[in-house]
Amino acid sequence: MKHYLQFSDFSADEYAYLFQRAAVIKAKFKGYEKYHPLADRTLAMIFEKASTRTRVSFEAGMYQLGGSVVHLTTGDSQLGRAEPIEDSARVISRMTDLVMIRTFGQDKIERFAEFSRVPVINGLTNEFHPCQIMADLFTFIEHRGSRGDAGDALSCLQGKVVAWVGDGNNMANTWLQAADLLGFTVHVSTPGGYEVDEKLAFGGKPHRAGCYKVFANPMDACRGADLVTTDVWTSMGYEAENEARRKAFADWCVDAEMMSAAQPDALFMHCLPAHRGEEVMADVIDGPQSVVWDEAENRMHVQKALMEYLLLGRLA
Amino acid sequence: MKHYLQFSDFSADEYAYLFQRAAVIKAKFKGYEKYHPLADRTLAMIFEKASTRTRVSFEAGMYQLGGSVVHLTTGDSQLGRAEPIEDSARVISRMTDLVMIRTFGQDKIERFAEFSRVPVINGLTNEFHPCQIMADLFTFIEHRGSRGDAGDALSCLQGKVVAWVGDGNNMANTWLQAADLLGFTVHVSTPGGYEVDEKLAFGGKPHRAGCYKVFANPMDACRGADLVTTDVWTSMGYEAENEARRKAFADWCVDAEMMSAAQPDALFMHCLPAHRGEEVMADVIDGPQSVVWDEAENRMHVQKALMEYLLLGRLA
Amino acid sequence: MKHYLQFSDFSADEYAYLFQRAAVIKAKFKGYEKYHPLADRTLAMIFEKASTRTRVSFEAGMYQLGGSVVHLTTGDSQLGRAEPIEDSARVISRMTDLVMIRTFGQDKIERFAEFSRVPVINGLTNEFHPCQIMADLFTFIEHRGSRGDAGDALSCLQGKVVAWVGDGNNMANTWLQAADLLGFTVHVSTPGGYEVDEKLAFGGKPHRAGCYKVFANPMDACRGADLVTTDVWTSMGYEAENEARRKAFADWCVDAEMMSAAQPDALFMHCLPAHRGEEVMADVIDGPQSVVWDEAENRMHVQKALMEYLLLGRLA
Repeated sequence: MKHYLQFSDFSADEYAYLFQRAAVIKAKFKGYEKYHPLADRTLAMIFEKASTRTRVSFEAGMYQLGGSVVHLTTGDSQLGRAEPIEDSARVISRMTDLVMIRTFGQDKIERFAEFSRVPVINGLTNEFHPCQIMADLFTFIEHRGSRGDAGDALSCLQGKVVAWVGDGNNMANTWLQAADLLGFTVHVSTPGGYEVDEKLAFGGKPHRAGCYKVFANPMDACRGADLVTTDVWTSMGYEAENEARRKAFADWCVDAEMMSAAQPDALFMHCLPAHRGEEVMADVIDGPQSVVWDEAENRMHVQKALMEYLLLGRLA
Repeated sequence: MKHYLQFSDFSADEYAYLFQRAAVIKAKFKGYEKYHPLADRTLAMIFEKASTRTRVSFEAGMYQLGGSVVHLTTGDSQLGRAEPIEDSARVISRMTDLVMIRTFGQDKIERFAEFSRVPVINGLTNEFHPCQIMADLFTFIEHRGSRGDAGDALSCLQGKVVAWVGDGNNMANTWLQAADLLGFTVHVSTPGGYEVDEKLAFGGKPHRAGCYKVFANPMDACRGADLVTTDVWTSMGYEAENEARRKAFADWCVDAEMMSAAQPDALFMHCLPAHRGEEVMADVIDGPQSVVWDEAENRMHVQKALMEYLLLGRLA
Repeated sequence: MKHYLQFSDFSADEYAYLFQRAAVIKAKFKGYEKYHPLADRTLAMIFEKASTRTRVSFEAGMYQLGGSVVHLTTGDSQLGRAEPIEDSARVISRMTDLVMIRTFGQDKIERFAEFSRVPVINGLTNEFHPCQIMADLFTFIEHRGSRGDAGDALSCLQGKVVAWVGDGNNMANTWLQAADLLGFTVHVSTPGGYEVDEKLAFGGKPHRAGCYKVFANPMDACRGADLVTTDVWTSMGYEAENEARRKAFADWCVDAEMMSAAQPDALFMHCLPAHRGEEVMADVIDGPQSVVWDEAENRMHVQKALMEYLLLGRLA
């Protein structure tokens, strides 16, 4: 049994399969083709942080595959408070087929997975957000026109440059894992004190030299990038630091100038919600290079491929 | 693509179809006939105000039609706070097929609809409650025995008198729109300071002369009415005014005397929850002329017809 | 129409059917056999107290049987506050096929059932928890190897001894009803001031002599028992008494010594969540005699048998 707790839990070959599979599943959806491989399977979703995109994308995605969803929030079940996490894992995994968890510490989701009888998916932790990066990569591949063939999907990523502008957060950590695994380079530029944590990202294990580079100036990070991406300055759980962060991040706003430093056909992505005028200017996120709405929709399709894979293995 | 944001969004001809269709769909339900026209379609429900009836009627109705539901509350997604309404609309409408919103200002739902790729339904705003009035009219037609034939449904309403006793609220505004469109008359009686707002109801557009009449005395409003209806004195969002409203509305309690001023076969309706002894006496709401439980159930059936129509157009 | 509000609402013969039926339904589930007897039926779940197990077991169970679920919490619908319970019952039972309620007073659920058009299930009240005891008895029968034949299921229980150690709460009351009906004996040991209430358990009606015995010392209660079971010291709704209860219950912790006083093949059960080191020691609940995870899973299977029975009657 496999879990999906970090991006590095899957091999490059598995991602090649998943990207190809997501394209197949998305085409079925767009064509209103009935496809119910997960009929009679139930997904438990446990949210300890609020969510719109993760909630809707997993829930609607599971319904589209013929399955059902039980949606638990902190009020219903607070991991590790009413009962030890391991007990919750044992009980919930006796009654459902798959569990998605959005929580605080990565350790909580790992402990849950250890005692679960069914696959567990990371729907965002303080440390990682692998489903989002999978959606971002799929969106990149889709926009570069190389769908349908698995090998091609990965080759489309190789050697590319992704500029990460802003907070060295769970998204940044996950980008590092993805770059290491799939052969592209991340240009990271964060304010001082908000650097990405290599030890956390790679868990102290060796990584491909040059899979990421650090830039003090965000303009330098964007230079020549095939994809420019950012996130809110204050992620969930860090609201108390809001004022300090606004000052520190003032120069890390993705604007037209940064986009013009990137490749002419560079894409812009944002995992949303976005604050126009803070981490990104309106003319960028609402401009022609932005693919944020496709990116949001693709959360649903890659997650459908992921759920199908965790429960049924490779198909076709 | 059509939305259903106000009663006036549909024509009389469309209502004739919907009333006939709701009768067909209700008969299928009563006969345990499997009918899944919305299989693989997902309804997103966004609640910024609490609800029992709207929640259960839409959710159970969607399941009966073979579809699925994602239920979002303020905690999950507050329109316009975590992100601009237009972004929520773009994202949610990428992942679902239909959106129902219960919120405060009508402007919020209109803005959402403007940026939505899928139809949007008004599940109650401060200004309007079109689904409830559709249910009330269907219940009236049903009790007057003229089901089955669409033309007949509308003719059953023409020339009738509906007495609205109490608050000039979203229900009252919607009654005005319905009367204007479908050829009946609303007798409105409210305390001073709680009058219905014609400009709001008709959006500054012309309306049929005599589609509504104002009465200072609620007894006068009930005289000769075919339907007497009211609502709580303090709607959701106005709780701070509760004490002042109790005083102002003291004479606007629907009692046996008011019912006796109406037609002998007049019906009583209330969109619920009801406060017996305030806006209505127990012997009226629990009496033989009251059809409030049919009215509540019919929310579900007219909304099923509405969802089917918005997604699939006219059938049969 | 039948409701399931107390354990005593069903006869021994009905339990014999339900235990046999739960085994059949569980086997279908384990074999991934599609079985949708409740297609197009909707369960309304009303929670006025938080829940993980009851929530997941009913919801996943209903999905497995092909049905749908509307999940209402206190925020959505507080029984008897926004509107009289009888009105909620009338409305909700017009739109759904079955209602499960977790609430405070048993009187609330009884009043709801009185005005409901559809069957009502007690998902825990301050007084009773019949679904849990049904799951516990099914788990006992299952572990004693006598599945498949209904008569055998009951004979497996007859003459057995169940030791209840701890709070004289809703679980204890329900054990008394079960023992009276199904021919076994409950040994009850509680601290002073937390005794089981015979009048409440039996509703003032006569009961089988010797269906339960009271022991001052929990060791004496466990002597010769076939099943030892307990619950948290402070159930939901009694949190204010937490400190006093910790002192009073200090000697009512199920430990290895108590288990060794029981039969060598005695089972240990706990309805969860458990607090290791309080009402039970870790080496007991995590030890070889503990069947708490099977017990938790079996909530789902007996409740599926229950829902099927309430809606469709006896099958096969």
